Amino acid sequence: MSLLVVGSTAYDTIHTPQGAREECLGGSATYFSLAARFFGEVRLVSVVGRDFRDADLDLLRERDIRTDGLEVAEGETFRWTGKYAADMNHRDTLSVSLNVFGEFRPKVPPSWTSTPFVFLANGHPSVQASVLDQMEKEPCFVVADTMDLWIETARDDLLALLKRIDGVVLNDEEVRMITGEHNLIRAGERLLDLGPKIAIVKKGEHGSFLFSPFFQFALPAYPTTEVRDPTGAGDSFAGGFMGFLSGRDRVSLGNLKRAMAYGTVAASMTVESFGVDRLAGVAFPELEGRYQDFLQFIQF
Amino acid sequence: MSLLVVGSTAYDTIHTPQGAREECLGGSATYFSLAARFFGEVRLVSVVGRDFRDADLDLLRERDIRTDGLEVAEGETFRWTGKYAADMNHRDTLSVSLNVFGEFRPKVPPSWTSTPFVFLANGHPSVQASVLDQMEKEPCFVVADTMDLWIETARDDLLALLKRIDGVVLNDEEVRMITGEHNLIRAGERLLDLGPKIAIVKKGEHGSFLFSPFFQFALPAYPTTEVRDPTGAGDSFAGGFMGFLSGRDRVSLGNLKRAMAYGTVAASMTVESFGVDRLAGVAFPELEGRYQDFLQFIQF
Repeated sequence: MSLLVVGSTAYDTIHTPQGAREECLGGSATYFSLAARFFGEVRLVSVVGRDFRDADLDLLRERDIRTDGLEVAEGETFRWTGKYAADMNHRDTLSVSLNVFGEFRPKVPPSWTSTPFVFLANGHPSVQASVLDQMEKEPCFVVADTMDLWIETARDDLLALLKRIDGVVLNDEEVRMITGEHNLIRAGERLLDLGPKIAIVKKGEHGSFLFSPFFQFALPAYPTTEVRDPTGAGDSFAGGFMGFLSGRDRVSLGNLKRAMAYGTVAASMTVESFGVDRLAGVAFPELEGRYQDFLQFIQF
Repeated sequence: MSLLVVGSTAYDTIHTPQGAREECLGGSATYFSLAARFFGEVRLVSVVGRDFRDADLDLLRERDIRTDGLEVAEGETFRWTGKYAADMNHRDTLSVSLNVFGEFRPKVPPSWTSTPFVFLANGHPSVQASVLDQMEKEPCFVVADTMDLWIETARDDLLALLKRIDGVVLNDEEVRMITGEHNLIRAGERLLDLGPKIAIVKKGEHGSFLFSPFFQFALPAYPTTEVRDPTGAGDSFAGGFMGFLSGRDRVSLGNLKRAMAYGTVAASMTVESFGVDRLAGVAFPELEGRYQDFLQFIQF
């Protein structure tokens, strides 16, 4: 089945201990789409400026990502510059220019308003909610991401959104911020009281955690020896996760677990190069091969 | 088969965000023994002072821990006072009095010098090596722990020890310190170049990692909602791990994985109360029940 993603497209300038790269194609929706594309049709709703490079549009289209919902607005594409610490786990934002993304009001193309799987990448929760308002047919599975900024400044909108979605993908600090609970297990359980049926907590190099009312599940990260640039790892995880689910006939326990493993593998590809270079170059057999390696690494 | 452990016995005073407790029975060999006792005979080599409480000796003996090698020396038992930060992941040592443990020269009772499984809990690497010198028959499986102090101050002794043992149990920072490699996967691989056939990296709430020349394996931590006192979690992990292995007929890949899961479960018991209260009160069916729960939590 098809999968709709709404989020940012950006040009990133990235400094890591492994080097620096300017103006890489990035953004949450870009990483998500490139990780989700292996499993079915991905429908991208985002915005870029007039400066968006044809080569980057081609990169998306050549990988069967549908760009009918990629708006080209007057102005410049979202720019972000960040610098990672030596351990790659912390980063400082050196500059942000929202540009056309600052006024982004996502418009879901009419032919996409019955898309069964929806991912709302990080954005203001009222903007995320506006996407759901546009859906003519209620999607079968909606997952959203968020960030500390919205937890602090748009808490009521975020709490309202949580009641309308099936799942949420967050990092460990964000779960603690929303719930005010330090213990991660209790924090995850409380998050479910706020609405979503499942909550996935991303812990970076420490793996990921799935909460649901009926079971919990944890995965370590893929054992990567090459980490060049962690940018986009979380969105790639979400893309692999949602992509795999959208290709299955139901959101079962087993499929949720497998989806987390595909998300883990997609994220491990992303971090091996700057920007989307590695992820965009992966073909399905390579992804599947790494998935099988990962199963060996975690299974009894 | 039987299992020999050489390490400390202590009285700990512990402050955590959940409260404080004075003079709890503790020490690496104590936690280790209490976690290992479910699987076979545990032989304890340690030292206490004249102030060691009869009730604590009874606690060990009633749980079938063999104390023939527990020396009672003139002076006082090892004392440690520590305080945990709000996140329970960091602790400060407020005071240490090594007392009789400062002069501890482990003496393996003659009838124990053919013990097939040996665990060298944290101590000066030359003291750890002295235990191996006393073994009449080469043990089939020797694992050692260490700490940052010895990595810094007794590096040559530690490197010599690593060439004589089968496995090492460390936390992530210690592996990085020994190898000078930040990436944990590469650090683990380099550690194996120094001698041991396997290296287990403990990551606390983030689980554990097994390195060997032929495979790698990772486990998340048990999803504990009650963390009252993390003291002894690492030694309990090692005890569950070595205990389970000592009860098997061979150190196979499958048994190493299962042993890590038992170690994880034993550690999760330990942290639920101050000191050894919870761990000492566990009977095997409860441990096994939690092991089965843990398998559900990690398996596809």
